[in-house]
Amino acid sequence: MYPTNTAIMPLPNQEPQLIKLKHRLSEINDIESVVSLLHWDQATYMPAGGATARGRQIATLKQIAHQKFTDPALGQLLEDLHPFEASLSYDSLAASLIRVTRRDYQRAIRVPAEFMARLSQHQAASYSAWSKARPENDFAKVQPYLEKTLDLSLELASFFNNSQHIADPLIEQNDYGMSVAMIKPIFQQLRQQLIPLIKAIADSPPINNSCLHQFFAEQEQLSFIKGVIFRLGYDFNRGRQDKTLHPFATKFSIGDVRMTTRVYEHHLDQALFSSIHEMGHALYEQGLAPEFEATPLARGTSFSVHESQSRLWENLIGRSRGFWEWFYPQLQGTFIRQLGQTSAEQFYRAINTVQPSLIRTDADEVTYNLHAMIRFDLELAMLEGTLAVGDLRDAWNERYQKDLGLIPSNDTNGVLQDVHWFVGLIGGMFHGYTLGNLMSAQFYEALIDSDPEIPVQIERGNFRHLHHWLRSEIYQHGRKYTSDELLERVTGQGLSLEPFMNYIRNKYGYLYNIKL
Amino acid sequence: MYPTNTAIMPLPNQEPQLIKLKHRLSEINDIESVVSLLHWDQATYMPAGGATARGRQIATLKQIAHQKFTDPALGQLLEDLHPFEASLSYDSLAASLIRVTRRDYQRAIRVPAEFMARLSQHQAASYSAWSKARPENDFAKVQPYLEKTLDLSLELASFFNNSQHIADPLIEQNDYGMSVAMIKPIFQQLRQQLIPLIKAIADSPPINNSCLHQFFAEQEQLSFIKGVIFRLGYDFNRGRQDKTLHPFATKFSIGDVRMTTRVYEHHLDQALFSSIHEMGHALYEQGLAPEFEATPLARGTSFSVHESQSRLWENLIGRSRGFWEWFYPQLQGTFIRQLGQTSAEQFYRAINTVQPSLIRTDADEVTYNLHAMIRFDLELAMLEGTLAVGDLRDAWNERYQKDLGLIPSNDTNGVLQDVHWFVGLIGGMFHGYTLGNLMSAQFYEALIDSDPEIPVQIERGNFRHLHHWLRSEIYQHGRKYTSDELLERVTGQGLSLEPFMNYIRNKYGYLYNIKL
Repeated sequence: MYPTNTAIMPLPNQEPQLIKLKHRLSEINDIESVVSLLHWDQATYMPAGGATARGRQIATLKQIAHQKFTDPALGQLLEDLHPFEASLSYDSLAASLIRVTRRDYQRAIRVPAEFMARLSQHQAASYSAWSKARPENDFAKVQPYLEKTLDLSLELASFFNNSQHIADPLIEQNDYGMSVAMIKPIFQQLRQQLIPLIKAIADSPPINNSCLHQFFAEQEQLSFIKGVIFRLGYDFNRGRQDKTLHPFATKFSIGDVRMTTRVYEHHLDQALFSSIHEMGHALYEQGLAPEFEATPLARGTSFSVHESQSRLWENLIGRSRGFWEWFYPQLQGTFIRQLGQTSAEQFYRAINTVQPSLIRTDADEVTYNLHAMIRFDLELAMLEGTLAVGDLRDAWNERYQKDLGLIPSNDTNGVLQDVHWFVGLIGGMFHGYTLGNLMSAQFYEALIDSDPEIPVQIERGNFRHLHHWLRSEIYQHGRKYTSDELLERVTGQGLSLEPFMNYIRNKYGYLYNIKL
Repeated sequence: MYPTNTAIMPLPNQEPQLIKLKHRLSEINDIESVVSLLHWDQATYMPAGGATARGRQIATLKQIAHQKFTDPALGQLLEDLHPFEASLSYDSLAASLIRVTRRDYQRAIRVPAEFMARLSQHQAASYSAWSKARPENDFAKVQPYLEKTLDLSLELASFFNNSQHIADPLIEQNDYGMSVAMIKPIFQQLRQQLIPLIKAIADSPPINNSCLHQFFAEQEQLSFIKGVIFRLGYDFNRGRQDKTLHPFATKFSIGDVRMTTRVYEHHLDQALFSSIHEMGHALYEQGLAPEFEATPLARGTSFSVHESQSRLWENLIGRSRGFWEWFYPQLQGTFIRQLGQTSAEQFYRAINTVQPSLIRTDADEVTYNLHAMIRFDLELAMLEGTLAVGDLRDAWNERYQKDLGLIPSNDTNGVLQDVHWFVGLIGGMFHGYTLGNLMSAQFYEALIDSDPEIPVQIERGNFRHLHHWLRSEIYQHGRKYTSDELLERVTGQGLSLEPFMNYIRNKYGYLYNIKL
């Protein structure tokens, strides 16, 4: 349905300065796409001996891309294009391209190249220290690195001096238009509602999910998964799935959007749902308007909207009863010995077990947000100066006990479990996981409103209308609209808690047979 | 034995201008290495939809590398380094680095960037036309492209106005120091000696090689090959083998040198010997001195010396009786049903069958050089203006009848069979295949002279001394010495026909039981 030929199409309006701008942006985009390929190769096929040079190659290309993007000549082009932009409609491709590029440019030039180099260098050192400290359960070993990361995060934020909250510039890096002021009250409500709800579930008879923990051979799992994601709409002519350690999706062009997975032979749900999750990210990128190719418009609009798309497919679709109405007979056929005696209903219950746990990435969709919000609150406290890095472990463990009723037995399954703070910044990421969950329910509600037949089609294995709706309402727009604008356009309102809580109450009220 | 850590080591002499030069060269080398990865990915895993953007990404990076390498500031650094270079010994790392870089620089700046862009564009169009014309047996369709390629080849050669023969600059691109004047007389002698020799073999009773054409499952072939190349010394911590359409070896750093292969399930010899061939290229690159990393010294010194290393492993080692003394029992164990009744001697004869054929890449080591020399003579004639592109097909077929006693039944197995003229230049490549064969025998003779025990060790599956000798005499030097210098150093003489002809006469005299 979509052309696989993603050659750069001529812009409708051939303004000379715009042609020059597009030419520069295409070159920068090529370099950045190649950096993504270098990372993909590193995580899939690269032999160990390639690591040192690979790090250097990535740094070299990133630096060239940064130099080219912060070139004052690019700023001048954007300046020159002001009158032209003003003559166009906000929605037009050209106006959107100029607007989004200017926004990126103005952010990029605020950060000195010298700082970027210093940050990269520290991040590499910190990641390396974390990789050793984590298996050794030794938070003290990385504490000095984390302290420096906090300093650097504050320094980065300080380059953007017009923000309301110190964390806002970090949040805006990944979620333009979002702010602490906007997120915090919603998170407080969410937490207040989730904690008693999870308590009620914990007090109910547990669901038996032992059917997932038999032996499921890797090759059969991968074959079944390939069939599922093909059916859901992933275009294998414009992508592929490979094995890795930490699954991710990545794009080298609109015609080449790849995903990766990892298989556990005693946890059937792991590769399956992580593949559907990554496929959600990949469908977003495969669904971009082809004329955005090689421009800053050609990617999902924000971290949280991206996450909403992966979670929508993983949870609202992939963990629904209707989905397995279609796919379960095939899964049973693949694993007759293991699942021959398990009904679709039993399987549906097994993949939706709620169980407070210590590890965010293993959490079910109900408790997951508590994990993300703990991190968000702790990083805000560090940035605000009310929590010292040295007290982080205690604060972490305290919150886990309070929110999830569990205390980490060590740092590996506690404060050291996530890579984010140790390879990136403190601030700007974790909020996106929960915002993504909230938005996924908002988008899904809008989708059902606009086409109430979709759940029936899902039961029949027909995902075309669903995919088409997502493509036309969300995917194709890339970064043309901000998260807020997109939410308003698609759902008619801003960020809201209600659709998510309704979804959770209905689904888990039924599964646990309680009034939530 | 070799460090897998290929971090850039400090040069012994920290001359400030040299540090600046190294820094620039490292950046350029990073970009060029990434271009190699883009090609590798394109030929192994890239989905079809990625093709358009991939072509653009490769062009973008190549252009950036070219701009950076021809930057006058780099020329100035080389200029400034003259006195420093003069103070060093010719063999020193620093002097070699400056010398080789200057040679490359002086060649690069002679070619206008505008020409390079024009050439690249034409090459892409020509390759695309050839890809269609070849299966259609339609030389006429690509003739206009080939005519333009000839013009561009002549234009490129014309930028180097001090050459003796118009083809010399093209040859020097791949084989610095080589010339038509040097190659032509040797090729004439070689051809004169080979033609009657092949005639004598053709008149002898043929060898039965049907044992190679049973069914050999792909997975078993790949497993056996992996074991062989591991044993021969290929370092899997610094490389890997993947499947592709046209096998090649490639390097992204000294710590990451990969090879590719293609398996035919009814031709046991194809994947096996092409893998040993590509491994020969890969061992050369894996064996470079680690301190050359990310400099222009870090690759095999020339096309023909590179080919000598792949052919040495493929033919002089891989097709020897001693080699199979060790490996044949393992091969038999892998394919008991197919080879259980075939002796090692029968197998050795089967893999050394001489049979004039139409396809260069399928040719045995005796007739192979006739194929390469036909192309060399034809391209010289085109460059000299004595053969029009329009007459190429007839000239080709005439020479095949004369030299090999066969006439191509169509263009696919005739004039259109090789990609070289259609994606590159006319001139500068084909001579290298035959020079490589001649040099492989010269190097092998020197090797046996220096350590007569090596053939015995090969029979016992011990390849360490052999590999060590090649590493210390050839591999580690990279581009420090030119082909000529290296030949002189290692064999005590320049290019010579004798070792190759002695090898062929001895081996095939025995196999065909005739006096050659």
